[in-house]
Amino acid sequence: MSIVSIQFNEDKQPKYQQLFEHIKYLIMSGELKTGDKLPTVRNLSQTLSINSITVVNAYRQLENHKYITAKKGSGYFISNIKIQKEETPTSSDLGMSTDTDAINFASATPHPSIFPIEAFKECINDVLERDKGFAFGYQESNGFKPLRNSILDYLNKTYNIWAKDEENLLIVSGAQQGIDLIGKALLNPGDYVITENPTYDGAVAVFKSRGARVVGVNLEEDGLDMVDLEKKIRICKPKLIYLMTCYQNPTTICYSYTKLKQILELAIKYNVYIVEDDTMSELNYNNREQVTLKALDTENKFVIYLKSFSKILMPGLRTGCMIIPDILIKDFTKIKHTSDISSSGLIQRSLDQYFRTGKWEDHLNYMKEIYKGKYEFMLGQLERLEKYRVKFHKPNGGLYFWISLPQSISALNLYNFCRSNGLIVIPSGVFYELDNKNKDKNLRLSFASSNIDQIRNGMTILDKCLENQC
Amino acid sequence: MSIVSIQFNEDKQPKYQQLFEHIKYLIMSGELKTGDKLPTVRNLSQTLSINSITVVNAYRQLENHKYITAKKGSGYFISNIKIQKEETPTSSDLGMSTDTDAINFASATPHPSIFPIEAFKECINDVLERDKGFAFGYQESNGFKPLRNSILDYLNKTYNIWAKDEENLLIVSGAQQGIDLIGKALLNPGDYVITENPTYDGAVAVFKSRGARVVGVNLEEDGLDMVDLEKKIRICKPKLIYLMTCYQNPTTICYSYTKLKQILELAIKYNVYIVEDDTMSELNYNNREQVTLKALDTENKFVIYLKSFSKILMPGLRTGCMIIPDILIKDFTKIKHTSDISSSGLIQRSLDQYFRTGKWEDHLNYMKEIYKGKYEFMLGQLERLEKYRVKFHKPNGGLYFWISLPQSISALNLYNFCRSNGLIVIPSGVFYELDNKNKDKNLRLSFASSNIDQIRNGMTILDKCLENQC
Repeated sequence: MSIVSIQFNEDKQPKYQQLFEHIKYLIMSGELKTGDKLPTVRNLSQTLSINSITVVNAYRQLENHKYITAKKGSGYFISNIKIQKEETPTSSDLGMSTDTDAINFASATPHPSIFPIEAFKECINDVLERDKGFAFGYQESNGFKPLRNSILDYLNKTYNIWAKDEENLLIVSGAQQGIDLIGKALLNPGDYVITENPTYDGAVAVFKSRGARVVGVNLEEDGLDMVDLEKKIRICKPKLIYLMTCYQNPTTICYSYTKLKQILELAIKYNVYIVEDDTMSELNYNNREQVTLKALDTENKFVIYLKSFSKILMPGLRTGCMIIPDILIKDFTKIKHTSDISSSGLIQRSLDQYFRTGKWEDHLNYMKEIYKGKYEFMLGQLERLEKYRVKFHKPNGGLYFWISLPQSISALNLYNFCRSNGLIVIPSGVFYELDNKNKDKNLRLSFASSNIDQIRNGMTILDKCLENQC
Repeated sequence: MSIVSIQFNEDKQPKYQQLFEHIKYLIMSGELKTGDKLPTVRNLSQTLSINSITVVNAYRQLENHKYITAKKGSGYFISNIKIQKEETPTSSDLGMSTDTDAINFASATPHPSIFPIEAFKECINDVLERDKGFAFGYQESNGFKPLRNSILDYLNKTYNIWAKDEENLLIVSGAQQGIDLIGKALLNPGDYVITENPTYDGAVAVFKSRGARVVGVNLEEDGLDMVDLEKKIRICKPKLIYLMTCYQNPTTICYSYTKLKQILELAIKYNVYIVEDDTMSELNYNNREQVTLKALDTENKFVIYLKSFSKILMPGLRTGCMIIPDILIKDFTKIKHTSDISSSGLIQRSLDQYFRTGKWEDHLNYMKEIYKGKYEFMLGQLERLEKYRVKFHKPNGGLYFWISLPQSISALNLYNFCRSNGLIVIPSGVFYELDNKNKDKNLRLSFASSNIDQIRNGMTILDKCLENQC
């Protein structure tokens, strides 16, 4: 097969897109190799009897995806595929993009301008005054004990989550470290992990780094497809099941109480651990009652609960916590120690002070107000897109929307097109581990780090890009 | 074999010690099982025709090591061996002991009372004033760029360490995380790692957690035994060699320039990475010229250099850095991201401010003065122990002494005896991966966290314990 062997299909995607896919296939299959030169635009358009703009667009897209490189004056060449693979963006790459001119709907963290800096600074200075050097000594690996108690009180009051005492609570340097510790504690090469499909790519990266095999179970509107879940548990005998039960990332769905109960029953029946990664259950905008899987695990045996404070407070705190089944807590504390000895004492003590002086609750209410306003504004803007047959779920909480695109549009193409027009979104492929018919059909749009003007402008860009692609 | 089958050897260790070893062997070999009851002191002393004090001492030692548990009124029972194994102390457990009444010669970090809290607080407040919320946003995974530049300037000036630019420098959440990242980047199950023997147990724990096999090479006064090193490189084809070239932990030796050159040549010849873990090369008390292996690796190809600021500044900063060969830097940055996204932005920015305002150099000079005084004081006190045929090397730098005990004394027994008399030291077994004739022959004594009075009192306790055991 060569470039000129392409057969255009008139009913399918635009021609430039078909050409892009064709050349990409030749590169990925090895028929075109690193360093090979592509035909000139003129040559190829003449040979294929197509408009030269079609070739230009296909080449531009190949270049955007780093499949090819332009060398000034000598044409286009196939890039080193290894480099291309490494540079596939992750959700985090996109969220943390340093392209300051672009509007960022990829980032799901608050903008630094609304962090409670003055209040936190006060806590830091109070702690330094009170604890002096001890704030900077080695800390207990499982965390500063008063902070563990503060958090436990909060989780108990807010979610009815039970733990015998603060010994079951482990402070970690952010939820990402929590996932890393879980991988180290429970996974060996060849082990299976079940995740939702789609799921958070940063968790998949950890599981794979332990040599584990990741198996996805499809999501329904109220949680996992239970039949598929049980089948896969039986076949794979997974070491753990990784879930986000509240405003799931990226789909925004919340699990029903019934499904949570069923999942816990399966965990007991098959003796498998469940990781419940809870990043934003606080952010409900309709006072929906909070239910977590952890609250149902009253004997603290099957659910490893993981909580981040990044989305509500500040991501740079790098402080999260886990509630860990009794039988695992010693192992986890040891692994935490081997990973980085302990999390920052100053930050832990300041966060404790922040909880104890009531600042956390105040700030949470403040953030909910802000986020709710942005949620409703983006929702209103999204309704404009229904003319393109864009569909979406209304989560009434969390920090993003998960929109599904009409059949004819590729999420990856739309992402690229938006990006070149100054808007960063996350294409659904990032969140799918395996091939799936929906892999290229959604975008995740977050309103967390943008203000109202940016949301309006970003949605206008999206509108135009959709118009162009439809 | 049973307890009463013991044959006492009159020329060997004290009887209680022989009885302890015998019962320990029966437990570890599984002949005595969890929950089994031991004979009463009276019964056993009568059966074996030995003094009941001998049995009491043996049982007490078994209890100290958690091989057996006393149940009030019903006697002694074999503990759960799994738990016993987990509770073998590590150097870090001992250093971070919360036994506040004891004098701690195990900890190799400065006491919190001499941390430069006021100066660092000033830096924190300056940073918060300047950067506001951005100090708490997500940071670049490889670290705050100005800090990378500050550190690179410092390393260049102090050690003549060369790196193309700050892109080769990675900020980590403490040196322990650096070792963890190395394990993740380079080790797979079954891979070999060569370490010094004895070595830092916290590094061995990381390598083993990756499923690697650790092979020790003995140390001579000027560094590794080169013949043994090359032989083991040939046989094992290790993925990396882990070294502490300056005031090695625990032996305090420094590598000669000749050996450093030879080691680098071997690394090139066999294409193997060397990790140079540099925790305290700054702490030289005789203005010895600094030579690091990294400075010799002028093409930045073979040496991964790892630097901690814990021993000079404050361990609770949880901030260290690595210089990484060009070819590995992308992988390391990605793995750092998967491990904990990034290190604390506030601490990184404050540390940068601390460097830029000249506070680091001032504090380093201050700490060297303090440590040097304590070094000389402990040295003077140690000379008193020569009457027991205790020997030691005079490192003229670093934070501890490595003393070798007379043939008749077990380091583990002496450690236990010291501990029950209010002094915490580290017995050499902690640092030996494999059996070695010297495994139980040394203690590591640090003066870092004790003041002059505590050093004097601790040495008096050690003197008495030695007198008792000799």
